Amino acid sequence: MTKKDRIQAARLKGFRDYLPQLMAARLEIMDTIRREAALAGFQTIGTPALEYATTLLGQGGDETDKQVYRFTDHGDRDVALRFDLTVPFARFVAEHQNELSFPFKKLQIGDVWRGENTQKGRYREFCQCDLDIIGADSAAADIEILATFQRILASIPCGPFTQAVGQRRLLSALIRKLLGGLDEGAETPALIAIDKLAKIGPDNVHKLLTAIPGSDSGGARALIELLVSKDSQGDTDMHIVAGELAGDESSERELKRLQVVLDAVRASTVGSHGQVRLDLSVARGLGYYTGIVFETTLAGAPGIGSISSGGRYNDLAGRFTSRELPGVGGSIGLDRLLAALEEMGQVTSSVAKPIFIAVATDDALSYACELVQTLRRADIAADIGMVPKLGNQFKHADRLGCSFVVTVGGSEAAARTYAIKDMQTGHEERDLPAAGLVARLRS
Amino acid sequence: MTKKDRIQAARLKGFRDYLPQLMAARLEIMDTIRREAALAGFQTIGTPALEYATTLLGQGGDETDKQVYRFTDHGDRDVALRFDLTVPFARFVAEHQNELSFPFKKLQIGDVWRGENTQKGRYREFCQCDLDIIGADSAAADIEILATFQRILASIPCGPFTQAVGQRRLLSALIRKLLGGLDEGAETPALIAIDKLAKIGPDNVHKLLTAIPGSDSGGARALIELLVSKDSQGDTDMHIVAGELAGDESSERELKRLQVVLDAVRASTVGSHGQVRLDLSVARGLGYYTGIVFETTLAGAPGIGSISSGGRYNDLAGRFTSRELPGVGGSIGLDRLLAALEEMGQVTSSVAKPIFIAVATDDALSYACELVQTLRRADIAADIGMVPKLGNQFKHADRLGCSFVVTVGGSEAAARTYAIKDMQTGHEERDLPAAGLVARLRS
Repeated sequence: MTKKDRIQAARLKGFRDYLPQLMAARLEIMDTIRREAALAGFQTIGTPALEYATTLLGQGGDETDKQVYRFTDHGDRDVALRFDLTVPFARFVAEHQNELSFPFKKLQIGDVWRGENTQKGRYREFCQCDLDIIGADSAAADIEILATFQRILASIPCGPFTQAVGQRRLLSALIRKLLGGLDEGAETPALIAIDKLAKIGPDNVHKLLTAIPGSDSGGARALIELLVSKDSQGDTDMHIVAGELAGDESSERELKRLQVVLDAVRASTVGSHGQVRLDLSVARGLGYYTGIVFETTLAGAPGIGSISSGGRYNDLAGRFTSRELPGVGGSIGLDRLLAALEEMGQVTSSVAKPIFIAVATDDALSYACELVQTLRRADIAADIGMVPKLGNQFKHADRLGCSFVVTVGGSEAAARTYAIKDMQTGHEERDLPAAGLVARLRS
Repeated sequence: MTKKDRIQAARLKGFRDYLPQLMAARLEIMDTIRREAALAGFQTIGTPALEYATTLLGQGGDETDKQVYRFTDHGDRDVALRFDLTVPFARFVAEHQNELSFPFKKLQIGDVWRGENTQKGRYREFCQCDLDIIGADSAAADIEILATFQRILASIPCGPFTQAVGQRRLLSALIRKLLGGLDEGAETPALIAIDKLAKIGPDNVHKLLTAIPGSDSGGARALIELLVSKDSQGDTDMHIVAGELAGDESSERELKRLQVVLDAVRASTVGSHGQVRLDLSVARGLGYYTGIVFETTLAGAPGIGSISSGGRYNDLAGRFTSRELPGVGGSIGLDRLLAALEEMGQVTSSVAKPIFIAVATDDALSYACELVQTLRRADIAADIGMVPKLGNQFKHADRLGCSFVVTVGGSEAAARTYAIKDMQTGHEERDLPAAGLVARLRS
């Protein structure tokens, strides 16, 4: 290839390569999620990256629709790359409902694509880890979701975190009660306004709320006050909420269930560095939520935003099937979490550094290969010199971070012995018998 | 949602959903590959699904170019989904060459996309597992690749398999020697013809060879005979090859190195159900191979074709950089391997069935949650009843394949006891103390 035929090695903007260290940390987080999910009885599924555009579009709002990577395939089909795992999962459940046993607890880990503006911790390709329980509308299912996300985050070195739990039906009831005679369509702008409370502050939210036709300025003030004020534990005050909604049977039921859920999740996360906070101002945008909703922030990386969120929905697959499938679930944004860990200097991995077998002379290659395989069979990671000159092999072993280099040449091969160097101390030993190598390295 | 607004839940042709059992088997194979690769000092990397079209096109032949999913993105960029992991890896190595330490041993597991005609074991989205060693042109590196793929396949329940190893430079030398005065451009059609030997038979290959301008009919016959005839071990006869190429120094060096490689790989795979066979007719199509090439077939699923293949190349990233980076590597087609395992009835997974905690009465929910968390903390998978009625919970536990169901109601919660039923034998015990639950289940 001549110089003028060469092209620049370039990635697309918003897309990432994963070098070994970062990739190892990423895989370890995935393994933690898989392990904790399996312990809680979640089963892993997979769906394709590409779906019919009609399956995906119109499900994530206009903004999301615009960000979808959509094109025409070889068979003139209108197709798109998934922008989340929830919409394909709805299609999956409808298609395979007779092969699944409900309640179905699922884990899915997969990349999704959005052509959005890039910023810190946000990429155009990013990995979502979704846990959902489909076919159960019970407090037990809500608890399982919240507690499992807690356990997962407690097993990752992301430091203290807060899971803020809201309840969409209670928030709606408060809006209806306090904001005055809103018609049904006006509830959505009120939810959107309240969801911005932490971001734009009470005064700006008050402006948004009073701009809604039929809303009451004093009521808006009272609603904001209720949502902003916290009890001594930092939670939205349940007594005040209960007082406001007294007599509304449906809300009283929801309140009672929410208390059961919070108590159980708190009981099951004792000793973890995760906190559960009741925060009724958590509304999770528009969405399809009908019960609990939650968001999770890290104390060590507040700028990254929520790294895990979700909630309860009452009809996952209604676009595809008449079967009503209530569920509860949520998602960990793996790449956002990884960005947070990078920010905190907590990108670690426990990948074992290999023992390095240096090959001093060509006639020792076969013997060196034998030693390498012996170590691997004993579950000891091992690498071998693959370039000429012993000095180069030692330099490479040093760059790899190997603790020990075993050297063999023709005379060692003949005598079935080896020399070993401790790369930290520089201490060397020679003429040790090969038969004792595994035991020597284990000690 | 009304009936008329509903759409059909449909996947794109050639794309697969993975239900839990198949997905668990798939993940276990990936885990095996990761474990064996890590033991051999390979480091995992990741690259994006989408690349600039110029990065990908023109690299896999015209047929592959036609199959690429290519489109214009939101920023009017000409982009495409990767059709393999090798071409993006070349871009990765060129871009990050100063961050990597060579020889660099890499593992990459990822989905790739080709809009090709679907057939058994072939999908439009499929997962590749690539191992490569870059920056080493040595027998040691060849051995590492062949031996590591051997170890991986020996750790997967795919039964006996054969790794057929060829050598492109030796094959080229034999073609030049026996076929007569071919010009350089005529070597390629000869390689393509020989690669079809197993598929179309000696007579048809002879027709193809003699149709090449300048080829010699008797020489073609001799070449085919040499490639078809095997020694008592089933290998291409090295003595005959050595005789044909005697005096050609370069070929003699390659022959010597090939013998070293084969001997070492055989020595390191003793006791496995994998066989190494020298088969100089393995040409691996056009490709960029310059040394060993290999293909792997399963005795139990010959119709699936090669499930792992690769070879040596001398210039991975020449399109992007003037730095010459020789390497050796290969790929396992995970979904083709999975199709083979399905055909052989060997799709198994060792995911532990959870212990099921049934909740007899609502007032026992919090106690049940506590038991569930206790089990999980002790690394025992546990699930909990999430639907009304004990009978439904037992039915669900049965469908999940749970071996034991622990039942708790209000009285058990008060006394901190539990009842347990062995779902195989039907044997039940009551009023056992909760403090002994973990020990009871471990025994």
